[in-house]
Amino acid sequence: MSDVLKNSFGNIRIVLCETHHAGNIGAAARAMKTMGLRTLILVNPENFPGAEATRRASRATDVLAGARACDSLSEALHGTALAVACSARPRELSMPAVDARTAAVRLAAIGASQPVALVFGNETYGLTTAQVNQCQLIASIPADSQYASLNLAAAVQVFSYELRLAALGAGIDSDRVPGDPTQDRASHEAVEGFYVQLESALVETGYLNPAQPKKLMQRLRRLFARAGLEREEVNILRGVVQTLRNPKKKQ
Amino acid sequence: MSDVLKNSFGNIRIVLCETHHAGNIGAAARAMKTMGLRTLILVNPENFPGAEATRRASRATDVLAGARACDSLSEALHGTALAVACSARPRELSMPAVDARTAAVRLAAIGASQPVALVFGNETYGLTTAQVNQCQLIASIPADSQYASLNLAAAVQVFSYELRLAALGAGIDSDRVPGDPTQDRASHEAVEGFYVQLESALVETGYLNPAQPKKLMQRLRRLFARAGLEREEVNILRGVVQTLRNPKKKQ
Repeated sequence: MSDVLKNSFGNIRIVLCETHHAGNIGAAARAMKTMGLRTLILVNPENFPGAEATRRASRATDVLAGARACDSLSEALHGTALAVACSARPRELSMPAVDARTAAVRLAAIGASQPVALVFGNETYGLTTAQVNQCQLIASIPADSQYASLNLAAAVQVFSYELRLAALGAGIDSDRVPGDPTQDRASHEAVEGFYVQLESALVETGYLNPAQPKKLMQRLRRLFARAGLEREEVNILRGVVQTLRNPKKKQ
Repeated sequence: MSDVLKNSFGNIRIVLCETHHAGNIGAAARAMKTMGLRTLILVNPENFPGAEATRRASRATDVLAGARACDSLSEALHGTALAVACSARPRELSMPAVDARTAAVRLAAIGASQPVALVFGNETYGLTTAQVNQCQLIASIPADSQYASLNLAAAVQVFSYELRLAALGAGIDSDRVPGDPTQDRASHEAVEGFYVQLESALVETGYLNPAQPKKLMQRLRRLFARAGLEREEVNILRGVVQTLRNPKKKQ
């Protein structure tokens, strides 16, 4: 296995949120392992562990046994430089949206040097808006408009397959890779910390009325998600907000 | 749906041979339907029909109900111009072998005008040599060498997905185009006006020292350029800077 492949795969987290059927978790673990992926994180699974998970995992019970449980998506995304939300549903004021193949190329490229995550929602209702807002990109599998409902583990299989091909570099023109892999991207928690500071400043100064927020923070999140903030840029933005509120010199 | 897509999809048969688990047949039907495929042929299924097939088919029970049963692979392949055997196992004296994506492109191309088939074997022993010999091409899904055993329905999902992308044409959809043409992008002068306001605020508050600017504005420009600001976003950003400097309410 090439170093790039090994690095990308080690850095790619598959995050399953509020999964209902334990069998789907087992099948997802199997799907991951066939493609060389091993880092599975479960956010509040509803019926796990269970015999059905073990059965459907087949010979991927090691991936299942190594799965980490988290209480929140935020915890699962700690340290990630890119989080991609898998969602078929069109969303108002959404993040940038791409197809599975494009998302896989970006995840593999950034995953070569920094932790990244691919996030799946509950089988029935998918990801919540709050969960999607913690990601920087939405990815969907091109599907039939009459029936676009892939089984959860089937979707994990398709994405894992595309991630493998992307990491192997097959059929990918590196000129087309969106997102410079050498970019020093800010971590999930650094960006979230900036949003907390910004929102608080906007509320305190009266620009944002908490009683009528009008999706202002969602819009700002979407803007910065498109940019893909670097570590140093988050520091600059924090400094800008801090200084605008409390000037260093008299005006 | 384009004519090529409709023709290809109508002409593509998914053939499952000697399937052991009825649940896998149901899950395969669901996988097919999500990608727009509907022609399912079952060669001597071992435990079909069954409740588990219906359950796993979810809302693809129509595909399941329309499935045709055959006594032999030869009967299933009647009239096809190309039959592709799905097999991960290396075979002595084998047919030409390609990966799933290459096979899908060929199936979709020929399927635009003539019937074609994609053939899957039993969950445990796969396709027999006699069955493979009735095909003209072997296709495999690139998988991890340590554990290459995809679940049958997961393999059907990956192939169906590749068939859909191949039939749609490029294998790439328009989502991949960087910069959404429908986005209401801000004009050059609007963005420049924001930079003037921002720089002036940063100088006046002391965050930016004009004597030692340290490429600060250049970094901020680069960040927002990556995002590709929309008209409304520029207004929001201007409002943020303005309000942070001159709060609407006392602090």
